[in-house]
Amino acid sequence: MVPNTVIQILVIHGPNLNLLGTRDPSVYGTTTLDDINQELMRRGKERGAVVSFVQSNIEGELVNAIQGAAASYQALLINPGGYSHTSVAIRDALDACALPAVECHLSNIHAREEFRATSLTAAMCIGLISGFGAESYYLGLDAALAHVEGLRSQ
Amino acid sequence: MVPNTVIQILVIHGPNLNLLGTRDPSVYGTTTLDDINQELMRRGKERGAVVSFVQSNIEGELVNAIQGAAASYQALLINPGGYSHTSVAIRDALDACALPAVECHLSNIHAREEFRATSLTAAMCIGLISGFGAESYYLGLDAALAHVEGLRSQ
Amino acid sequence: MVPNTVIQILVIHGPNLNLLGTRDPSVYGTTTLDDINQELMRRGKERGAVVSFVQSNIEGELVNAIQGAAASYQALLINPGGYSHTSVAIRDALDACALPAVECHLSNIHAREEFRATSLTAAMCIGLISGFGAESYYLGLDAALAHVEGLRSQ
Amino acid sequence: MVPNTVIQILVIHGPNLNLLGTRDPSVYGTTTLDDINQELMRRGKERGAVVSFVQSNIEGELVNAIQGAAASYQALLINPGGYSHTSVAIRDALDACALPAVECHLSNIHAREEFRATSLTAAMCIGLISGFGAESYYLGLDAALAHVEGLRSQ
Amino acid sequence: MVPNTVIQILVIHGPNLNLLGTRDPSVYGTTTLDDINQELMRRGKERGAVVSFVQSNIEGELVNAIQGAAASYQALLINPGGYSHTSVAIRDALDACALPAVECHLSNIHAREEFRATSLTAAMCIGLISGFGAESYYLGLDAALAHVEGLRSQ
Amino acid sequence: MVPNTVIQILVIHGPNLNLLGTRDPSVYGTTTLDDINQELMRRGKERGAVVSFVQSNIEGELVNAIQGAAASYQALLINPGGYSHTSVAIRDALDACALPAVECHLSNIHAREEFRATSLTAAMCIGLISGFGAESYYLGLDAALAHVEGLRSQ
Amino acid sequence: MVPNTVIQILVIHGPNLNLLGTRDPSVYGTTTLDDINQELMRRGKERGAVVSFVQSNIEGELVNAIQGAAASYQALLINPGGYSHTSVAIRDALDACALPAVECHLSNIHAREEFRATSLTAAMCIGLISGFGAESYYLGLDAALAHVEGLRSQ
Amino acid sequence: MVPNTVIQILVIHGPNLNLLGTRDPSVYGTTTLDDINQELMRRGKERGAVVSFVQSNIEGELVNAIQGAAASYQALLINPGGYSHTSVAIRDALDACALPAVECHLSNIHAREEFRATSLTAAMCIGLISGFGAESYYLGLDAALAHVEGLRSQ
Amino acid sequence: MVPNTVIQILVIHGPNLNLLGTRDPSVYGTTTLDDINQELMRRGKERGAVVSFVQSNIEGELVNAIQGAAASYQALLINPGGYSHTSVAIRDALDACALPAVECHLSNIHAREEFRATSLTAAMCIGLISGFGAESYYLGLDAALAHVEGLRSQ
Amino acid sequence: MVPNTVIQILVIHGPNLNLLGTRDPSVYGTTTLDDINQELMRRGKERGAVVSFVQSNIEGELVNAIQGAAASYQALLINPGGYSHTSVAIRDALDACALPAVECHLSNIHAREEFRATSLTAAMCIGLISGFGAESYYLGLDAALAHVEGLRSQ
Amino acid sequence: MVPNTVIQILVIHGPNLNLLGTRDPSVYGTTTLDDINQELMRRGKERGAVVSFVQSNIEGELVNAIQGAAASYQALLINPGGYSHTSVAIRDALDACALPAVECHLSNIHAREEFRATSLTAAMCIGLISGFGAESYYLGLDAALAHVEGLRSQ
Amino acid sequence: MVPNTVIQILVIHGPNLNLLGTRDPSVYGTTTLDDINQELMRRGKERGAVVSFVQSNIEGELVNAIQGAAASYQALLINPGGYSHTSVAIRDALDACALPAVECHLSNIHAREEFRATSLTAAMCIGLISGFGAESYYLGLDAALAHVEGLRSQ
Repeated sequence: MVPNTVIQILVIHGPNLNLLGTRDPSVYGTTTLDDINQELMRRGKERGAVVSFVQSNIEGELVNAIQGAAASYQALLINPGGYSHTSVAIRDALDACALPAVECHLSNIHAREEFRATSLTAAMCIGLISGFGAESYYLGLDAALAHVEGLRSQ
Repeated sequence: MVPNTVIQILVIHGPNLNLLGTRDPSVYGTTTLDDINQELMRRGKERGAVVSFVQSNIEGELVNAIQGAAASYQALLINPGGYSHTSVAIRDALDACALPAVECHLSNIHAREEFRATSLTAAMCIGLISGFGAESYYLGLDAALAHVEGLRSQ
Repeated sequence: MVPNTVIQILVIHGPNLNLLGTRDPSVYGTTTLDDINQELMRRGKERGAVVSFVQSNIEGELVNAIQGAAASYQALLINPGGYSHTSVAIRDALDACALPAVECHLSNIHAREEFRATSLTAAMCIGLISGFGAESYYLGLDAALAHVEGLRSQ
Repeated sequence: MVPNTVIQILVIHGPNLNLLGTRDPSVYGTTTLDDINQELMRRGKERGAVVSFVQSNIEGELVNAIQGAAASYQALLINPGGYSHTSVAIRDALDACALPAVECHLSNIHAREEFRATSLTAAMCIGLISGFGAESYYLGLDAALAHVEGLRSQ
Repeated sequence: MVPNTVIQILVIHGPNLNLLGTRDPSVYGTTTLDDINQELMRRGKERGAVVSFVQSNIEGELVNAIQGAAASYQALLINPGGYSHTSVAIRDALDACALPAVECHLSNIHAREEFRATSLTAAMCIGLISGFGAESYYLGLDAALAHVEGLRSQ
Repeated sequence: MVPNTVIQILVIHGPNLNLLGTRDPSVYGTTTLDDINQELMRRGKERGAVVSFVQSNIEGELVNAIQGAAASYQALLINPGGYSHTSVAIRDALDACALPAVECHLSNIHAREEFRATSLTAAMCIGLISGFGAESYYLGLDAALAHVEGLRSQ
Repeated sequence: MVPNTVIQILVIHGPNLNLLGTRDPSVYGTTTLDDINQELMRRGKERGAVVSFVQSNIEGELVNAIQGAAASYQALLINPGGYSHTSVAIRDALDACALPAVECHLSNIHAREEFRATSLTAAMCIGLISGFGAESYYLGLDAALAHVEGLRSQ
Repeated sequence: MVPNTVIQILVIHGPNLNLLGTRDPSVYGTTTLDDINQELMRRGKERGAVVSFVQSNIEGELVNAIQGAAASYQALLINPGGYSHTSVAIRDALDACALPAVECHLSNIHAREEFRATSLTAAMCIGLISGFGAESYYLGLDAALAHVEGLRSQ
Repeated sequence: MVPNTVIQILVIHGPNLNLLGTRDPSVYGTTTLDDINQELMRRGKERGAVVSFVQSNIEGELVNAIQGAAASYQALLINPGGYSHTSVAIRDALDACALPAVECHLSNIHAREEFRATSLTAAMCIGLISGFGAESYYLGLDAALAHVEGLRSQ
Repeated sequence: MVPNTVIQILVIHGPNLNLLGTRDPSVYGTTTLDDINQELMRRGKERGAVVSFVQSNIEGELVNAIQGAAASYQALLINPGGYSHTSVAIRDALDACALPAVECHLSNIHAREEFRATSLTAAMCIGLISGFGAESYYLGLDAALAHVEGLRSQ
Repeated sequence: MVPNTVIQILVIHGPNLNLLGTRDPSVYGTTTLDDINQELMRRGKERGAVVSFVQSNIEGELVNAIQGAAASYQALLINPGGYSHTSVAIRDALDACALPAVECHLSNIHAREEFRATSLTAAMCIGLISGFGAESYYLGLDAALAHVEGLRSQ
Repeated sequence: MVPNTVIQILVIHGPNLNLLGTRDPSVYGTTTLDDINQELMRRGKERGAVVSFVQSNIEGELVNAIQGAAASYQALLINPGGYSHTSVAIRDALDACALPAVECHLSNIHAREEFRATSLTAAMCIGLISGFGAESYYLGLDAALAHVEGLRSQ
């Protein structure tokens, strides 16, 4: 068992999530991405974790972020947005990266268009949380922390 | 805004979940269903909620449980197991039932056989949590409570 | 030609139909299942037929009901609900059972989700009536009686 | 509630139905189309309705008939025959036409070749009746009349 | 090598098999389920095995039977009937259950309707025997006994 | 055996065949439809057959032609053109019509676009001849005559 | 370069377009077909073109119109309506016809039912304009005129 | 134009055709392969052609026969039997071989099992004749001779 | 009705469009992207509109451009190039963005490879113009302007 | 009832089965083909049957073997190996051949790659036994003998 | 590490490759198979390897060649031609055979007909080289030698 | 024939290839991307070629690299990684670019997940080399050089 240093979590927001709070509120709610980030930091702090953030609309920058995380983080919390359904490159990056990842989505991907019901990226994550609005992120943080703590206590 | 009475949550366990802790631990872990139920009760109690349970291997009994819940509960937490992928009847029961429901799965349904990647029932739930072992239930309870509290505070 | 004794019809209601009148009225109307049963009995009586009823949410109990009907009934009127689209077992029971059957649905199965447009069970029935609300049952009773009377007059 | 004038129903027979009574009787029975029309008129008269008829083998003439019906009729009873499975044009005409329509088929379209199990046109009708031979038309007339009377009594 | 005690085999009959001998004999033959059970017991006895039986039309009861068998039996002989093609729950029960299982079918599932050619459950069995009428059960018993004896002689 | 009266053959040309000789000659050759008709008449005459013709671009008129042929002809030679691949109505007309029919195509339908490789209508004909340009009609006439003569000599 | 005589354009309206202005205005707008024709003539006149019109609900009459246009017109503007998605015969007629054609649709065929997203006929046209209501026709006229003028100026 | 020497035609019979006359006569007729060969020779002789034969049940021997034919023959008449639907190797051999080929089938491949409706090999032939029993071969010989004569008269 | 200020249109060019005029001219013509931009500006100016431009080969930069347009523009004219067929992210950006958009393509996407016939992005636009080379942009500008003017005159 | 002469069974081994005992033992076991043949002969002898063998890697030679068996054998036991999933020619040979056949496979074809789950040949056999290693052959011999004895005792 | 004896490579040419140099040169070039074999021998010699060859048009003979190679060779270079796309038997032979294999194709199988884009056999090889004409063989030899040398140097 | 100047080759590495040597070595080996680049330069130098490199995780930057190569290079060696299977934009860039390209992959794309077996980009390359680890690049360089030298010697 390694000594219990501070847990570092990287939250990766995919395309269009920078618009959060301005986009159709009946689907995505009114909270902004910054609100979510603040709340994630606050909750992380309570549990002894530092939460960092990156957002990009560019598929390859998300790949870069995943690749770069291995050195400094213990887990990823990722919302790949529209790239979930088409990106083999992000899937490969998650596979190559040694970190456990949790995928989250604001909306319920099984209750929208059919092309959203498949997730190429989720197969490379521990699990998926989808449909709870901003709460999906908070539950995802809990899942990631529980997973890291579980590894430590082994 | 209605007065804040105790929240009642019904947890519905589908087929084969009674075997939990005996089935292939590399996929499902070693926790028993009773362990999970105890933990859910404990966590519910902390947040002022009473958590009840039903388990059945029979599709139609799950339909019965969903129908019967409307009178006494504010939300459902359901793991439909193998019926998630084939049951129009459970889907219809969730649709007919006025309660918000959260679907959870122990294993990551997007990382197993292809026929598990589709969920007929999830489209009738608020959202889906899948892949975190017993933790999927605890995150699901949080999601259900957050949802009910959200409705109350409106 | 056999002597014209009283015709016995068994009406089999599938999953969730016990909720009738409480479920989304824009799709299914406000009539209860008991209202429909009363009206079916009244109409049967007018034409010299006795109409009996069974409802179950459990697929295998519907199989049991179909199997058990052969001894005492001349025809079946069945609304298999969500099992229409998935149940090979009910299809086989209808096939094994010597009785003519009429399948009916409250809503128009061709105007809803795509997975409702296929009926495994209808291929084992004389025909299908779908989309007329409670009227689907009454038309179905007429169809069943006309069929039985047609057989008798041969 | 509008005054109860006579109900006008247009029955539209699609391709090959003019052959009725000559075509393979094991599938379609021996009744001719004129027999059916006579019986429909007789039954309509009993319930205070006038029933008119049109038959064509030509897809576009069926479109014309549907379009032209709006001015003089309260409902349509249509057997689109083979065009049910392929005609977007008839589907569009039914959609554009303000009249409630009932689709009927002599044979059970779910128990024949697979390409007959889909109906493009049924989605634009109130409902579908299929498999009862000439009786499908009589049940269809009942369904159409019940629907129109239901609208009037609102 | 464990001592050679009596071998216990559980035979699980799925939906509609209780009708055996009454259902379409051109497909399934005239033998009753009891005839088969008697013959299986007789054959088992000859080879030092006790054969027990359960039949149910209810999917979840078959799941229960499979789960309950682990404590007292060394192998299963199962004919899941129509549930073979649709039941993820029975598949999961066979997977969770520690016992070797042999799947058998009276008719040749590759020579009937296309939806019968796939078996979800067979992938969790040692193998499949299909098409030999009642003989399928007797061959299946031989296969199960040969398998258990093979394990013992290792 | 019936007396050998003159054989009457109806040749039915489908959509766009009136353009023959003007349309892309690399696919269809330079012969006109009238050239083909003359040659068919000449060849028919040599074998004691009268050959008649109808051409229409309208699906329903082809249905009419097929229906009307039963009274006066012993066989049909039909090139349904583009309707081969989509017309359930022509298929049904060929099925209802008591006459043997031969389907022919100028071009090889298996060597063009994928949607031309399926023929709904060919399944209701004795056989298919495709790919030999105008020769497809002459071979088709031979096939039709051989078939009728074969029936007569029984 | 040929001398610049008057350009002749034939506009071909497919099934149900005669209803324009009466059909569901939220999808198709309130303009009538005659309004569109008047506007097309006015716009054609401004650019030295004569615009003529034909409308039919009958697939084969559209084939006839396309075939007949070659002698007198320099280009076609066609809205095949529901036949776009199913008609091999119209596709073949456009292919056989020597004239450049522009396909237009009032509604956006990529934003409606899935069976409308494929166009068999568009592959035989220069291009497709879809989704702009009556404006689709005016843009289509511009496209056709630009194409013809481009050919002339070569 | 080359001098009119004797035309050499090779007829290639695929798998199971050696059984002709013994196999199910309701599908294939009672004529033996030798009967067909005799008749083909007789008909060839009448038109100044020598007809030779090869039969094999082995896919690769059919490939060999096609390859070897180029030196001595002007055309092929081939019935690839069951290999029509699966053999890329025979397709490639027909493609590589410089000779025109006619594919024929005794039964109507569009009126049997669905896997027989596709022909990989027909796309590499001039055309296809299917459904006329032994007559398919005689029509095929006519088609091949007409094609060769057509090439010579150019 | 708001005051008629200058209309601002943003034209978004997707991947490979910077190569215009150098790429295969038989498919895309010889005009350069700058030529098109100049012409669009000139035409915009004539109708009181200012037209701006952005081109990128990077999917996420197109997402950025769409997001950033909402503040300063009244409409978008977008050619998403190859991303039309695969980008859920651009589709979501168009959906989130409050601006009306017109999609245009130089080549006819229905007359090329099958994977180009589907457009994920077009469903989030008013409509689609495809196949007219550079003219597709000019028609698209007209369509966008007509739409904005139509909104203003309401 | 014919006199009870010795039963002759032909066992046909398909491609790669000659390698048995050398190929991956975790899938196929260590028994050689000769071991199996010896055991089949021994078991046959016990039940008054003579068992003969043929093995070939060549599809057409298997066709030959099936065709040639009709004269001297009462039943076939066939393991078509990889050809089960692709050979229409072997299917046709089994169909043409008057002998009852039993198909067997060493491994469970429903638990391996998806392309092994379909069997073209099994539809022409009495039934299928798959998954029991060498035991599949012995069970298959029992099934074949039981079938032949059943025919004799009629 | 074993002593470095001479490396033995078997090159297996599938159907129609004996025609090389005579078949369509725009696809396959003008080099003959013997040219390729000579060059492969020369190149092998330079690297201390002996290269042998076998060609057959018969699927089962290719299976034989693969099976027989295990005793004398260290690697296979195989061009299965048309059998790549359909042969489960060759796939199984490659799987059973202990030798590393390299698959090569003269033409680019991803740029031709769709049925050539799948390779059943490639999954049982180290890798695939396709599209470089005769060079595909030389690159394949290099790949095979590099692989064998890599194994030796471990 | 142009004078033999130095050959310039651009090697384009797609997403995640910068991780080479750190990612799962059982699939991709332990060589780093820099190791491969060094070796490619060394090998190029031996054959009188200069080899340059670019790597990006961003789809559009790969498009940029391909576009920019036309001015300075004679050939491309590209490993599009995960974009091979989804990128129409890279496919279009390769098509627009005048340079011959060779596609290579470290792992065998036909022996992994099904979504990797299709390559949109390979159809725009001369050929594909897949499965040989770093050797795939060296073989690819040979293939590219052989192709360029072949063009020069014409």
